[in-house]
Amino acid sequence: MKHSSGPIYAYEPWTVTEQIFDVEQSLRSETIFAVANGYLGMRGNFEEGYYGPVGSSYRGTYINGFYESAPIIYGEEGYGYARERQTMLNVADAQIIRIWVEDEPLHIFHGSLFGYHRQLDMRKGIVTRTIQWQSPEGRQIEVVFERMASLADPNLLLIRCKIRPMNFDGSIRIESAIEGGVVNQVSAGDPRSGSSFSGPVLNTLEMRENETYTGIAQRTRVTGFHVTCAAEHRLHGAEYTVDTEAAGSRVEKRFNLSAESGQEIVLEKYIAYHASEEPDVGSLWTEGIRLLDSAMEQGFDEYARKQEEILDEFWLTADVRVEGDAALQQGLRFSAYHLFQSVGRDGRTNMAAKGLTGEGYEGHYFWDTEIYVLPFFLQTVPDIARKLLDYRHYILPEARNRAEELGFKGALFPWRTIGGEETSAYFPAGTAQIHIDADIAHAVKLYNQAARDTDYMYGDGLEILVETCRFFASFGQFIPGRGFCINGVTGPDEYTALVNNNTYTNVMVRDGFHYTVDLLEELRSQDERRFDEVTGQFGVTDGELGSWKKMADEMYIHREHGMIGQDDSFLQKAVWDFAGTPQDKHPLLLHFHPMVIYRSQVLKQADLVLAFHLQPELFTRAEKARGYLYYEGLTTHDSSLSSCAHSMVAAELGYLRQAYDFFMDTARLDLDDTHNNVKDGIHAAAMAGSRLAIVNGFAGMKQDPDKLSFRPVLPEEWLSYGFAVQFQGRKLRVDVGLESTVYRLLEGEPMPIEHFGVETLLHDKLTLPNRVLAGVLFDLDGVITDTAELHYQAWKELADSLNIPFDREYNEKLKGVDRMASLKLILDNGDVKLPPEEMDELATRKNERYKELLETLTPDALLPGVRKLLKALRREGIGTALASASRNAPTVLDRLGVTDLFDYVADAGAVALQKPDAEIFLAAAEGLGVHPMRCIGIEDAAAGIMAIHRAGMPAIGIGTRKSLPRADHVVATPADLNPALLREWMLTFSKKDEVMDIGE
Amino acid sequence: MKHSSGPIYAYEPWTVTEQIFDVEQSLRSETIFAVANGYLGMRGNFEEGYYGPVGSSYRGTYINGFYESAPIIYGEEGYGYARERQTMLNVADAQIIRIWVEDEPLHIFHGSLFGYHRQLDMRKGIVTRTIQWQSPEGRQIEVVFERMASLADPNLLLIRCKIRPMNFDGSIRIESAIEGGVVNQVSAGDPRSGSSFSGPVLNTLEMRENETYTGIAQRTRVTGFHVTCAAEHRLHGAEYTVDTEAAGSRVEKRFNLSAESGQEIVLEKYIAYHASEEPDVGSLWTEGIRLLDSAMEQGFDEYARKQEEILDEFWLTADVRVEGDAALQQGLRFSAYHLFQSVGRDGRTNMAAKGLTGEGYEGHYFWDTEIYVLPFFLQTVPDIARKLLDYRHYILPEARNRAEELGFKGALFPWRTIGGEETSAYFPAGTAQIHIDADIAHAVKLYNQAARDTDYMYGDGLEILVETCRFFASFGQFIPGRGFCINGVTGPDEYTALVNNNTYTNVMVRDGFHYTVDLLEELRSQDERRFDEVTGQFGVTDGELGSWKKMADEMYIHREHGMIGQDDSFLQKAVWDFAGTPQDKHPLLLHFHPMVIYRSQVLKQADLVLAFHLQPELFTRAEKARGYLYYEGLTTHDSSLSSCAHSMVAAELGYLRQAYDFFMDTARLDLDDTHNNVKDGIHAAAMAGSRLAIVNGFAGMKQDPDKLSFRPVLPEEWLSYGFAVQFQGRKLRVDVGLESTVYRLLEGEPMPIEHFGVETLLHDKLTLPNRVLAGVLFDLDGVITDTAELHYQAWKELADSLNIPFDREYNEKLKGVDRMASLKLILDNGDVKLPPEEMDELATRKNERYKELLETLTPDALLPGVRKLLKALRREGIGTALASASRNAPTVLDRLGVTDLFDYVADAGAVALQKPDAEIFLAAAEGLGVHPMRCIGIEDAAAGIMAIHRAGMPAIGIGTRKSLPRADHVVATPADLNPALLREWMLTFSKKDEVMDIGE
Repeated sequence: MKHSSGPIYAYEPWTVTEQIFDVEQSLRSETIFAVANGYLGMRGNFEEGYYGPVGSSYRGTYINGFYESAPIIYGEEGYGYARERQTMLNVADAQIIRIWVEDEPLHIFHGSLFGYHRQLDMRKGIVTRTIQWQSPEGRQIEVVFERMASLADPNLLLIRCKIRPMNFDGSIRIESAIEGGVVNQVSAGDPRSGSSFSGPVLNTLEMRENETYTGIAQRTRVTGFHVTCAAEHRLHGAEYTVDTEAAGSRVEKRFNLSAESGQEIVLEKYIAYHASEEPDVGSLWTEGIRLLDSAMEQGFDEYARKQEEILDEFWLTADVRVEGDAALQQGLRFSAYHLFQSVGRDGRTNMAAKGLTGEGYEGHYFWDTEIYVLPFFLQTVPDIARKLLDYRHYILPEARNRAEELGFKGALFPWRTIGGEETSAYFPAGTAQIHIDADIAHAVKLYNQAARDTDYMYGDGLEILVETCRFFASFGQFIPGRGFCINGVTGPDEYTALVNNNTYTNVMVRDGFHYTVDLLEELRSQDERRFDEVTGQFGVTDGELGSWKKMADEMYIHREHGMIGQDDSFLQKAVWDFAGTPQDKHPLLLHFHPMVIYRSQVLKQADLVLAFHLQPELFTRAEKARGYLYYEGLTTHDSSLSSCAHSMVAAELGYLRQAYDFFMDTARLDLDDTHNNVKDGIHAAAMAGSRLAIVNGFAGMKQDPDKLSFRPVLPEEWLSYGFAVQFQGRKLRVDVGLESTVYRLLEGEPMPIEHFGVETLLHDKLTLPNRVLAGVLFDLDGVITDTAELHYQAWKELADSLNIPFDREYNEKLKGVDRMASLKLILDNGDVKLPPEEMDELATRKNERYKELLETLTPDALLPGVRKLLKALRREGIGTALASASRNAPTVLDRLGVTDLFDYVADAGAVALQKPDAEIFLAAAEGLGVHPMRCIGIEDAAAGIMAIHRAGMPAIGIGTRKSLPRADHVVATPADLNPALLREWMLTFSKKDEVMDIGE
Repeated sequence: MKHSSGPIYAYEPWTVTEQIFDVEQSLRSETIFAVANGYLGMRGNFEEGYYGPVGSSYRGTYINGFYESAPIIYGEEGYGYARERQTMLNVADAQIIRIWVEDEPLHIFHGSLFGYHRQLDMRKGIVTRTIQWQSPEGRQIEVVFERMASLADPNLLLIRCKIRPMNFDGSIRIESAIEGGVVNQVSAGDPRSGSSFSGPVLNTLEMRENETYTGIAQRTRVTGFHVTCAAEHRLHGAEYTVDTEAAGSRVEKRFNLSAESGQEIVLEKYIAYHASEEPDVGSLWTEGIRLLDSAMEQGFDEYARKQEEILDEFWLTADVRVEGDAALQQGLRFSAYHLFQSVGRDGRTNMAAKGLTGEGYEGHYFWDTEIYVLPFFLQTVPDIARKLLDYRHYILPEARNRAEELGFKGALFPWRTIGGEETSAYFPAGTAQIHIDADIAHAVKLYNQAARDTDYMYGDGLEILVETCRFFASFGQFIPGRGFCINGVTGPDEYTALVNNNTYTNVMVRDGFHYTVDLLEELRSQDERRFDEVTGQFGVTDGELGSWKKMADEMYIHREHGMIGQDDSFLQKAVWDFAGTPQDKHPLLLHFHPMVIYRSQVLKQADLVLAFHLQPELFTRAEKARGYLYYEGLTTHDSSLSSCAHSMVAAELGYLRQAYDFFMDTARLDLDDTHNNVKDGIHAAAMAGSRLAIVNGFAGMKQDPDKLSFRPVLPEEWLSYGFAVQFQGRKLRVDVGLESTVYRLLEGEPMPIEHFGVETLLHDKLTLPNRVLAGVLFDLDGVITDTAELHYQAWKELADSLNIPFDREYNEKLKGVDRMASLKLILDNGDVKLPPEEMDELATRKNERYKELLETLTPDALLPGVRKLLKALRREGIGTALASASRNAPTVLDRLGVTDLFDYVADAGAVALQKPDAEIFLAAAEGLGVHPMRCIGIEDAAAGIMAIHRAGMPAIGIGTRKSLPRADHVVATPADLNPALLREWMLTFSKKDEVMDIGE
């Protein structure tokens, strides 16, 4: 037995391989090597049994949607609390294939292991495990286990076991069993691993056996669901006799045979599970026999062939190629593979938080589906995306009941569930997350846009939209002086609970209202008869449509000093003491009482940042930049869902270093077990997020009603990346290089695509340049001209008139300080205190004088090279804009005679916050009509450099490296600049993405 | 068996009597007739056994502080959650005395009952129950049971049973048992009744018996506490033989005898309970024997004598006399009696929420003690108040641990507990109520002021103060732009949870900081050595003192538009839909999900109103009037603690109708079972509140560091009331009549008292007048003069200049409308819309013109009789003040020539809100230096009448009854008024206390 540390699986493109067995990693590898097909899931346990240390393995086989209920016990009861827990059950264990060599049991904790190899092949969909083992008495044997969960038949698992004596002839006994006496794991204090039943909950009704056939029928105690598990066997390569052993809840076939050294014996085990929510076994037995007969007839190899065929088709769209990082490449494929394995696709089941690989979160379905998993499938296998939505429609009756129980109209979907009922036992981080309704409505919108299936759009899809609108219309409240408010809820960030007007929730609800109203109004304008029909069907009145529109239009969003609040009170709390929180106190939820966490500015996961991603058009780019930097500084990323949202928004804002780092946090989260809980199962949502971070993050894909738009950037660590997406019946391939992006239409009609804001029709193939220089943004003072002297003169005159000492030395303190603050500094110097009105008056007087002095400026005051640079840029068709905080800028440009050389002058009076906030540079880019990521900024002050970076642009400093250490490039004067140089520098991305000081 | 409805106990002064047995009222009567002595409590069960319908009785015997623990199970676990529940145990049942008449069992569900009488005598402290019963075979018998919990000996219960055959001679068997196989009640969904253990938790260790002695020793399973219960018997009046029956956990003595018709047989049963937290039985058995020997020697009658003696002493201070309402008189005594019965007085136990009468709230101690119960005892039996505080000091170690566990300094007392550990299983309405710390500190302050015990003050008391200050200093946070904030807490009102800056909490904490700092600073200035000693002992540094002072000084209190917020966000929520909530949906907590309740403006109980009562000096009277009216409209009073606080604040503000109604809600809460849960036990805090509502409410007693102040008022339903109080070693008697109050010093040194704001030294007896007329407050327009015509002229000129039609008819719309709103009405009439600046300009122009017109006023414009009235008031020494909203009032008075006749003119510019807000009238009273309840107001407008009422004053209307329907008295002109009339009207209290429209 060997122990290793660090990454334990080699970086291979299409496989995941375990070269040694490490008992410390056993639980984790059981998850990594789980096989599943969306209906059945089987952890990567050892067929021959596991005899290692207690707690280093747990055997599990799961059926999606098959659960047991139990009452939730509360310390203090409350009206409307979720009443029943639901736990995805560990069902009968049919993995068991024990091998005896002359009565010596073969397993790796006995005798000695001299060869071990386990491999998941993601193109074949098979896990193969080879062990070479020597018994205590010296017999050497090789056993190869192959297993798959059939993607062709959801009820079928297959195991093939090849046995080869290496140095002996002798008797071998193979015991293949089904064990019905199984239990679920018990939670050990971590609320995330899910507490379960402490004993068996499946009653065994009957066991059957016949020749090589075994089977068991069981029933859950409370829900009364039934399940059968049956197995058939085929043994090649030797004569054998077979015995049966049945006792308790275990039925076993024992194959007895003799083998010679080198002889290969092959046992194929076909396992069928059939489950039903009906109160009797019904036809489960016969369905199992029919399936096993067919499987035996087709054989293992045929299933292997089909498995590969299905995966080939999947990879055609789902594969994301990254050149330049083998580890990442493997991680991306591993994620896609597991998602495909685990996702429910029958419209009655969904994607459990941990897939079908473990018991974390009790196998519950969350909002993870709609926000992370569904977009993945919408891009890759849209039919599965639809099935995920069908599940929500399937549980609509329970959601209606829940809304009614709480006293509201419409439907409230459960925060966590399997069967459709709310099962969250802690409502402040459960039921209070009513954004689940808006998340589902959002998913319907995405699906409608991508699938254009009008039957769904005006059928089941509309029903969900209407019922969620109705819920929010009755839950929210118009509050005088504020607008439409949604109070007393919890947003996605569970480190804040029960607040008013969580912005994420409010913008998602707003969009849901608008989308629903627009959908119906558009239908009315196109086909009034159908409009009457569908509104009649769901009882939608004009009054409702009018009120939803009004609610959306008047939705309250909390803002303070230009910053969007996570909710009404968030910005009024104290910032968490990050410096005083050692690393071993993370995640906070395991080390601090919720009320301690709730009272601070600290986030578990992206909340407003996620809203920036999902509703990008509801915020200005300046708001997003400011909000991202602020909230990012407060986020612990204690949730695995957090990093990918941050990565996407960072990419959008041009913060590529952060985008890359956050992405890499997600990309191999499970393979590297960075959250230390892969033992409980995969992190399905984060896996989906790793694709989204590339497609929607780095490539910047956004889905509009009738086009896709992109804004591709390439992290410098990579050579290129590429992926395919499905949209409105087309299949599109996108390959992003450093300089350009190639778009290919693989299937379907020509379609419009947008690339860095420019729309083009894609017929066959298009190659478009990436981050070209299209705009240069200039600061004024110190870049275009130097008006510092004029400011000095104006202040000096004022100070003299007040008899306050003032000289050039003291003047240095005023650099980069705004007018009022400068005045204060001067008055302080004279120990003068004045009332606000008089201060205003003095500041105005100084400015008036300064403006008079400006009148004395002439073109001579232009800094050297400026005119030449401006002219050169103009010649090459590169836009130029002024991004100065000075409200006198237009006057100055006039006096300098360069007004005509600027395409745009940003209005300093219209921005909410001064530099280092990004807004003035973003306003300049917008005024030019150029994508900010195609602009470069030129500044002479540190605050300005920071503002350019925050605007997501490379920053050129005029000055010295010492004075401007964070500038990407520094020149002494504008005369050192020319278009070619700026173009070159455009491609070297800044590595100095800014982080905001929270106190700022 | 008879059934009754309505009040079931006759209104008797010193007794509570049940004349019939009603099975529907059985559980309730078991609570009402419970006997207790602070250590032991025994429900009013039937000795002979109860064989009525299941669920119509539960037998219970409780030992204060004797509990069992069990893990709290959470649906979702969280760090720092309370881990163990604690439940006051139902201990061995020693009430059992079964009687057999010739082998016919005697009980009231068998045979027939022809006489039934049960009576609690509150002066004797004994419950007597008499039944006259006929067996199915026709034997008639009378049995009288007397029972008491000895107030002289906390370990002793006594039962005396007198048996008299009425119409037969024959054999009688009396079985007296101790049954150890007891269980607690199981909660049935109501979070308030407390869920308990579902089976027995006491293990029986040993049973003993000897002659007439029986005993049992038991042990709790988890806490490992031990308890013995032993009984001795004495039988008079007949020869008897005695058998013993012992099996399981039951040990029984059977007395066999023969009796003749008319013969009286008496059985006395002495019951001793001894409990210990030690891991062994130790000396419990011998202590029991010693006590029983002594009790047998003294006999039942001797204990009855001592019982009466102790109660005589108690009633001397505790009795509150009310003349004019027999039901109320009984209710007040019943409350005082039960408090005295149930309160723990050994410094190791406390007052359970339900006393020792039932299992509601699991026998836990809450803040109820400090806020309600302790002030009761401070006034009546200060030694008990001290013992209640000693309990808090006793659990200080657990409170320190709790603070540390949550990451804070100092000590955090548990929200609910028995043993000292936090046991609240729902932290948003448990641990988050950190105001418990401030409540305890407040109680220490009250005790210090009243007891002046410097050993305590600088010892245990100071330690509590210091540790609670430390907790808040580390929990609260300075937040820039706000001050010292206490975020993420829950105030007393549990219909709002986890909010920032709950005002109740913040003001209580502020006072705790200030009091602690002042206490130490005063000591430093008086005795620096002692200061060094005590600060050294508790490690208090100057830095701490400085920071506590700063935190107190900069404590954040949320205000919006003159209204104090219950917390930062409360006023930004929507008001609960009261109109849409039918009566059967109350209490809300049983019919609505907490998140639905939390998101609305709705209160379970007084929160800010309670703060007004506890910290009256931290708010202006105008703030209190405004806040009381607003929050009262939002309060459901779903908590029994709410009404008495509302009553006290209403009395303080002069809202006597409300004060009376709220008081009456509390006064007989248990006797009338108005909350329908007396079965679970008494409402101890509400019982204490009924005394406080009289002493601190109607009599307005406030405790200052060195005096008591009063402001007595008499509800018109009563003829008089009176009570005694203890304070600083004195005993004081206060008797309040309609016209005057008599203060008598019964014990102790002369002391200063304050009466309606006037301080006097009380030597022996003082008789002071109550609500005399000392100030008359006049509105201006329509009362002193009529300037309506001048306003009309000014508006008319303005309208003409704008070419807007305006006439006298339209002018009517402007009455009572302020300047800017009037202008808007005029502009609307001309369809004119103007920017704010121009509006301002026009309003100013009109006012300038109006002021010019005022210059034309002469004394002739005085309304008839005004000068005469003013002069008459002046002659009689009654103050006069002007309370007008007009900023031009001084000019008008000048022009009218009456400036000299006014003692004070309230500054209209200094008030936050206009009429109907009370502020201008309160400002006028304050300016006069007269208590507002000695003022009367004169008004001609409905809003003004309302404002006077809101100021707590009688309101005289100038006009007609039709135009001023809510005025207390209406006259046509001021000429109809004279001082004598106003004096008379002063005594007729308004019945029209105003309720605020929440939308206002």
